[in-house]
Parts: sequence; structure tokens; C-alpha cells
Amino acid sequence: MELSEAQARVDAWIGRFEEGYWPPLANLARLTEEVGELARLLNHRFGPKTKKPGELEQDLGEEIADVLFVLIVIANDQQIDLGSALEKVLEKYRVRDGDRWISKSGGEEVPRSS
Amino acid sequence: MELSEAQARVDAWIGRFEEGYWPPLANLARLTEEVGELARLLNHRFGPKTKKPGELEQDLGEEIADVLFVLIVIANDQQIDLGSALEKVLEKYRVRDGDRWISKSGGEEVPRSS
Amino acid sequence: MELSEAQARVDAWIGRFEEGYWPPLANLARLTEEVGELARLLNHRFGPKTKKPGELEQDLGEEIADVLFVLIVIANDQQIDLGSALEKVLEKYRVRDGDRWISKSGGEEVPRSS
Amino acid sequence: MELSEAQARVDAWIGRFEEGYWPPLANLARLTEEVGELARLLNHRFGPKTKKPGELEQDLGEEIADVLFVLIVIANDQQIDLGSALEKVLEKYRVRDGDRWISKSGGEEVPRSS
Repeated sequence: MELSEAQARVDAWIGRFEEGYWPPLANLARLTEEVGELARLLNHRFGPKTKKPGELEQDLGEEIADVLFVLIVIANDQQIDLGSALEKVLEKYRVRDGDRWISKSGGEEVPRSS
Repeated sequence: MELSEAQARVDAWIGRFEEGYWPPLANLARLTEEVGELARLLNHRFGPKTKKPGELEQDLGEEIADVLFVLIVIANDQQIDLGSALEKVLEKYRVRDGDRWISKSGGEEVPRSS
Repeated sequence: MELSEAQARVDAWIGRFEEGYWPPLANLARLTEEVGELARLLNHRFGPKTKKPGELEQDLGEEIADVLFVLIVIANDQQIDLGSALEKVLEKYRVRDGDRWISKSGGEEVPRSS
Repeated sequence: MELSEAQARVDAWIGRFEEGYWPPLANLARLTEEVGELARLLNHRFGPKTKKPGELEQDLGEEIADVLFVLIVIANDQQIDLGSALEKVLEKYRVRDGDRWISKSGGEEVPRSS
């Protein structure tokens, strides 16, 4: 799926309701909630936290996509094009962080920072 | 940008380094950190929080994309296809939440819950 | 309750179990989870989010105390005395932020920043 | 420091300003921000994330107390007595989770769940 299509589909979904987009801090609260659910699931799988008896196995892909959904809502509300914003961040990381970790051997990699 | 392409580019970026993907709970910690930065920016713009003098105006698109980047990292590490996971969530919301808000008038919308 | 007593009681509780304290990033994941639950509740009460039918009214004090509990766990694990740490922060805010908001009239308040 | 005293001192601090308490979702956004800063620090210390050159070593106690400060703000605004809320949670954990982990040997501990 194209990021632009994902944004359009979320917008269409929200457009069905009178309320439209929530206020920014309410969207943020929901993002915090969804990240918390992802945290619980990751802690269950990869941390020491045991599940409560009866707690259902939840779908990790669903939790991640729930976070993505709210992130798209925030981007739409703020009129951010996610594709070009992500392009910029990929470029930022390439330049800024290129020398913060150890490059694989072969070593044409040259530290970029000042 | 296709979500699958975004996932591939993040994977290629991480693949440049010996360390590879971080452990899941470290990725989660970074997600928490990036969501915190987004929270600060949204609170600056839409909440009552005043900026410290000298605090730079930051790019909202960049903060959102930073969160998206880490989310893609987590999806990659967990071998989640974001496109199909998002499809499922869009369908879930359509079915589950279709009647939680007021549909726009015209009203072919029929509540779906029991 | 004294903060030091709260820390001692949480420590005693954890001391009952073989596992002892979780690793720091697992404690952090749990903090993220509990903050997410608080976010959901606050959004229900003060935001536009409607509850799912059947969703129980939860106790706000309990959610806040759940966050506090995990925060105490992290402080204990890191051997932080919460009382003195909070003292320092109260002093920091007094000095740093004293002039970031409008003081009440009467106006003996003098901006403290450079 | 007594929790009640901590609450009173935060209240006195906020009472100095015309603006008073922020709206609940703005306080929550700030909590999210502070938890994000704690996440960054814990990830630096206990995760694989390397620091950017020049990034200052921050005080872990201060970050934890920053979170505690905002949590107290939320409790104050919602008229929650943190001491009694924490008492309830300690009791809840004692009853609910007493059998979720392995008790230390000696074994007077009896599983409490059904």
C-alpha cells in the first residue's frame, strides 16, 4: 500500500463521521494509549512479564498497525505528507548517524560527521 | 512511497551496520522516546506549554516521521508486513467502530453492532 | 505515606519473588503500558473519545497509582531516593521556569533567567 | 518527603502562576514527553543505543523525578490523594498478582488465584 493511499483511506474513514478529526492532544493521547498496548505485548513476548491467566494472545501486527493508524491520523490532521516526511528522515539518518555504529567490514564506509 | 518500499529501505539502512536490529525492548524504548518528542512539539503548538527561550521550532513532519521510522524498525524486526497489517486494522475499525460515532446525514450508514 | 516508605514497601513486595527486579528496559516497557492506560482513561473523560459499550468506568486514582508504582520500581532498581530527587526537581523548576509563565499580580515576582 | 507534602508543594508552585493547572490532555502530553526522556536515558545506559557525541550525561534521578512531578500535577488536578491511591494499588497487587511469579522458597506463600 502506498503511504499516500493509506492516508487517503484513513481520511475517508474519518470523513464518514460528523466529529471529524479529534483535537491534536486527543489524537496524541490515543497514540500514547496504542503505544502502551504495543509495549504490553512486546514485554509479554520478549520481557520477563508473565501473562495474567486468560489473557488472550494478541496479534503483534495488529498492535503495530493500530499505532500506525493513529500516526496517520495525526499526519492527516496536520497536513503532513508521510512519504516525503519519511524521505527526509531517511536522508537525515543517513547523514547524521552514518558513523554512530560500526559499519560492516569491506569498509568503503567513511565517517561523515565533522 | 509504498509501505513495503519503506520497510525495505529501513532494512537496508540497518543492514549497513554490524549491530543489526536492536533487541525488541530497546526498539520500544526508542519508540517511547520519539513519541515523547512528538508530544512535546504538539503540546507546544496546541497546548498551553510555552517554549523555553531559544528552543528551536522543530519540524512536525520530521517528528512524525521519526516515530514512523522506529515503528517500521519494529515491524521489520518482527517480520510484520505493514501494508497487510494496516489493511486488517482498517477493516477492524470499519466493522467495530462504525457505530461509535455519529455518521454524517444522508444516513445509509447502519449501525453494525449487536 | 512517606516516599521512602513507599519505596520500601514496593521493594518488600518485589523481594517476595525469586525473579526480583526486572531488567530496566522491561520496567520501562511496563511504565509505557501504564501511561497508556492512564492516557485512555483521561481521553475518555476529557477528550472526544467515546467508550466502547460495556467498557467499565475505571478508577482514575488507580491508574495514576499504577504509574507511580512502576516509577517507584524503576527508582528502586536504580537506587534513586525519590524524596531527594524530587527536592532537586522542585528547586530546578523554581529557578529555571520561574519566569516562563505569568506570575500572579502583586508582582514581587522577578524574572530569574539570565 | 510525604506524598501529601509533595502534592502540596507542587500545588503551591503552580499556584504562583495565573495559568494554574493545564488542561488534562496537556498534562498528559507532558507526562508522555517526560517518559520519553526517561526512555532515552535508560536506553543509553542499558540498551544498545550509543550516544551522540557531545550528548551530556543526564541525571537518572532527575529524569525519574521529572516524571513524578508531572504525575503529581495530574493527581492534584484530579484531586487524587496519591498516598491512599498507592495504598490501594499495593493491596491490589498483593491480592491479584501474588501468584503470578515464583515465591521464594520456604513457601508459606499460597497461590491466591482461582
